[in-house]
Amino acid sequence: MDLTPLAKKMFLRLEPPSLADNTADLDRLRRGLKTAHGLEEVAVDLEVARKAPAILRRSGWRVTALLGLDGRPPRLLDLEAGQTAGREAGLAVDLGTTTIVGELLDLATGRSLGSASETNPQTALGPDILTRIQAARGQGLARLQGLAAEGINRIASSLASGAGLKEEEIVCLSVAGNTTMTHLLLGLDPANLCREPYIPVINRPDPVEAGTLSLKAHPRAPVFVFPNVGSYFGGDLIAGLVASGLAEREEVSLLMDVGTNAEVVVGNKDWLVGCAGAAGPALEGGVAKMGMAAGPGAIERVRIDPRTLEPQLKVIDGRAEPPLGLCGSGLIDLVAELYLAGVIDLQGKLLPLDHPRLVATEEGPAFVLAGGPGERSGEEEPILFSQVDLDILLRSKAAMYTILVTLLSQVGLTFQDLAKIYVAGTFGQHIDPWRAMVIGMVPDLDLSRYVSLGNSSLAGAVKGLVSGEARRKAARIRDRITYLELNVNQEFMNRFSAARFLPHTDRVLFPSVPRPAPRPEPRVG
Amino acid sequence: MDLTPLAKKMFLRLEPPSLADNTADLDRLRRGLKTAHGLEEVAVDLEVARKAPAILRRSGWRVTALLGLDGRPPRLLDLEAGQTAGREAGLAVDLGTTTIVGELLDLATGRSLGSASETNPQTALGPDILTRIQAARGQGLARLQGLAAEGINRIASSLASGAGLKEEEIVCLSVAGNTTMTHLLLGLDPANLCREPYIPVINRPDPVEAGTLSLKAHPRAPVFVFPNVGSYFGGDLIAGLVASGLAEREEVSLLMDVGTNAEVVVGNKDWLVGCAGAAGPALEGGVAKMGMAAGPGAIERVRIDPRTLEPQLKVIDGRAEPPLGLCGSGLIDLVAELYLAGVIDLQGKLLPLDHPRLVATEEGPAFVLAGGPGERSGEEEPILFSQVDLDILLRSKAAMYTILVTLLSQVGLTFQDLAKIYVAGTFGQHIDPWRAMVIGMVPDLDLSRYVSLGNSSLAGAVKGLVSGEARRKAARIRDRITYLELNVNQEFMNRFSAARFLPHTDRVLFPSVPRPAPRPEPRVG
Repeated sequence: MDLTPLAKKMFLRLEPPSLADNTADLDRLRRGLKTAHGLEEVAVDLEVARKAPAILRRSGWRVTALLGLDGRPPRLLDLEAGQTAGREAGLAVDLGTTTIVGELLDLATGRSLGSASETNPQTALGPDILTRIQAARGQGLARLQGLAAEGINRIASSLASGAGLKEEEIVCLSVAGNTTMTHLLLGLDPANLCREPYIPVINRPDPVEAGTLSLKAHPRAPVFVFPNVGSYFGGDLIAGLVASGLAEREEVSLLMDVGTNAEVVVGNKDWLVGCAGAAGPALEGGVAKMGMAAGPGAIERVRIDPRTLEPQLKVIDGRAEPPLGLCGSGLIDLVAELYLAGVIDLQGKLLPLDHPRLVATEEGPAFVLAGGPGERSGEEEPILFSQVDLDILLRSKAAMYTILVTLLSQVGLTFQDLAKIYVAGTFGQHIDPWRAMVIGMVPDLDLSRYVSLGNSSLAGAVKGLVSGEARRKAARIRDRITYLELNVNQEFMNRFSAARFLPHTDRVLFPSVPRPAPRPEPRVG
Repeated sequence: MDLTPLAKKMFLRLEPPSLADNTADLDRLRRGLKTAHGLEEVAVDLEVARKAPAILRRSGWRVTALLGLDGRPPRLLDLEAGQTAGREAGLAVDLGTTTIVGELLDLATGRSLGSASETNPQTALGPDILTRIQAARGQGLARLQGLAAEGINRIASSLASGAGLKEEEIVCLSVAGNTTMTHLLLGLDPANLCREPYIPVINRPDPVEAGTLSLKAHPRAPVFVFPNVGSYFGGDLIAGLVASGLAEREEVSLLMDVGTNAEVVVGNKDWLVGCAGAAGPALEGGVAKMGMAAGPGAIERVRIDPRTLEPQLKVIDGRAEPPLGLCGSGLIDLVAELYLAGVIDLQGKLLPLDHPRLVATEEGPAFVLAGGPGERSGEEEPILFSQVDLDILLRSKAAMYTILVTLLSQVGLTFQDLAKIYVAGTFGQHIDPWRAMVIGMVPDLDLSRYVSLGNSSLAGAVKGLVSGEARRKAARIRDRITYLELNVNQEFMNRFSAARFLPHTDRVLFPSVPRPAPRPEPRVG
């Protein structure tokens, strides 16, 4: 394992000065860093130089230097009396719009010291990227910056205390997030991200100091922020690419990050082409009444008995409580299961069957997933899945598939040419590829080609935290991606319309997907 | 001329973003800097990134970037709307213990925009290095830092206003000073500079930002501080070496900086050996009653008619006012002239001649230089030169000569091997080499070998300000100097005693110095 974190502590035993060896304090320190740790040249910040003489003498010339190692030359960030090296940690952060996940790492071994997640405190000012950008106007930007820091700080504090460390012993951080989230964390105005022609302030931020961002860590700790390609192609995706290894292999693979905004990259070690497009909010739970983000209480998995139509649900953090709603992966499961059970037809219509789970509502027919008659789910509203919800999901899945088809046709490949399809993002880790294939959201391929990356943004952030090679990879991947503007022309629209069927108007494209079970008793009227 | 200042403004006309070219604001700027100015890579500070989007749009994508050019990669320090390049200036500073001298330079042409000097405001807390170091204890350090900045700021303000520039248009500074002065300016504790084993905090400070030092300039302006070799071998001497060109030539030369502390370097492009030693305060005016630093009112040149003993004086900034005292060069002149006129004998005794200018005082015989009987010099005390003053000067000149002899014998050379002798330092510029030779302070060589460098510390600072090559030279010279600890042993003391005569006990060493005029009438008793 390449253990080259952004910052490192180094212990030094220095010879005290004498008339025979009267080199200056900081030059003595530099000499020690060269002799004992092979650092040829070290830049010294004035702040450290100012306090060094007292620390050197008080400690009897036994000191621990904190070095920032990402620039050339390395930089002396701090100096402590005595031996304090070996305990320092780094924090990798997946800065999501909804959820922030952090993992603390022992920098000496690369070992995980624990992970934790928090709802992004910015949600108080708006649930999604667009509302956040609106909230960032004027003084709002500083507030959103502070809230992002607050979310990371809660994680930093709890992980540090769990590992028996002081917050200042976190000596470096890496952050992967979408372009808007990293802009807000850095205090950069996101206004132009959502206005044509969609311009970020910066694509390749230089490392900043934790103190500048009000992060609870060593104030001089370098913070590496994953670069982005553009407004819709964030550092989280780059981190996912780093985690997947896609960009280093001979074989051609594809990585897809499914969400309100779908991001897709195809390529190998020689080339990388990517595009992003709106897939609609359905996949992130932003639909109708029963949709919710993947989080405690959300139904993430659905199985339906094709005979009885009785659902079996798996709820995130599910205890005794009834589920609160349905997240994206649950939604995909539900539609696939209803389709296979013959409750939804090829054209994406909920059939008005004569069954207690199918009820008529003002918005048309609906399937009662939980809390219906005869179920003991307290006084909550029943969780209904209506035709309106279905239509929204079908648009999202059609958009996703169309984006994939369009991208591949642009690079002259077919799905069969893909060695792997990596499903990335916090949402992606919950998707069942088979059911996503049943509804025609992803191509019909051998399931072994699908690889769920779990939280690939965090996995990439972890790599970026501990490995200089990973950080350089991130920079190279960013520079190598050819960004393809999705041209929403007639051809795209035709593809999109064809993809709104289940699984597709052209069933030949989905040979593995079985025809639905016949349902004998359509209700009349 | 190598015009590569520490910082530079660059004007850019950028293409506004479009859907076809939606690169990020800062990356667009980086691209512009690469295309128009050949900068391959540019680091961007968060502060600049935060304000860039508004400036870029407000200015219609016509902006001026301030680049810090001394590090790798160059750093974007600031961004301004419109075209503001070409007016920026840099300030070179000779930070002397007594006097601060500054020169403002047009960075586009390298042309001087004027120079000015101020008494170092730190003198309020102590006249010399030792008292300053004492004053720097505890809270005193911050105060001395502020006073050094205040002195530079007065010069910066007056020169900027004289050149029609705003202070923020000073975009870089270079400072040469002795080790104590640069420590105080940087806010580094000088306590260990004057305690055995005499350890500076740092010998090679990295450039700092003007704002950090409270200097009146662009707050992000890089400040280059000349490196020092040790406590007694400061950046002013390194600057002098840069100015002299000694370290780049084939021929062996010597540079001497004469003052309370004498610093001498001998060498050429292949080797450099230096030493420093106490020469006593005589040469900086720190003697008896009539001594003073070279400044307005100080007698800097003395000629004495050998027949009448009537003195002719040249006073610095001399207007109608009577002189206030005698500075080092005046002192050297006076002793040389009195020796040549037969008033001082070979052994350095003022002869008790029967002449109105020779008076008896409590401290023995004295020569009335000004303000004596028959002169209209107001009510001031007459300026007397006594045997006490003479003894102090003789010790200083003997120390100086002994240091020179010792250094040369250590490197196996004689004075005849020296192509040039550069006389450096603020004091050096006033010395008359012939008269210094007459008193045996410097070796008896053809006068054409003596080169007065003027204010070589300032001259070096000017070079360091505008030329990257000069800054690299300074670093190389610093690293190349072999510092020779002056061993004050019996041999040294023997040499010192021999050098206290006029010009020397061994007259063969000074063949050019004439024997004094005979004076017929020694006063009896």
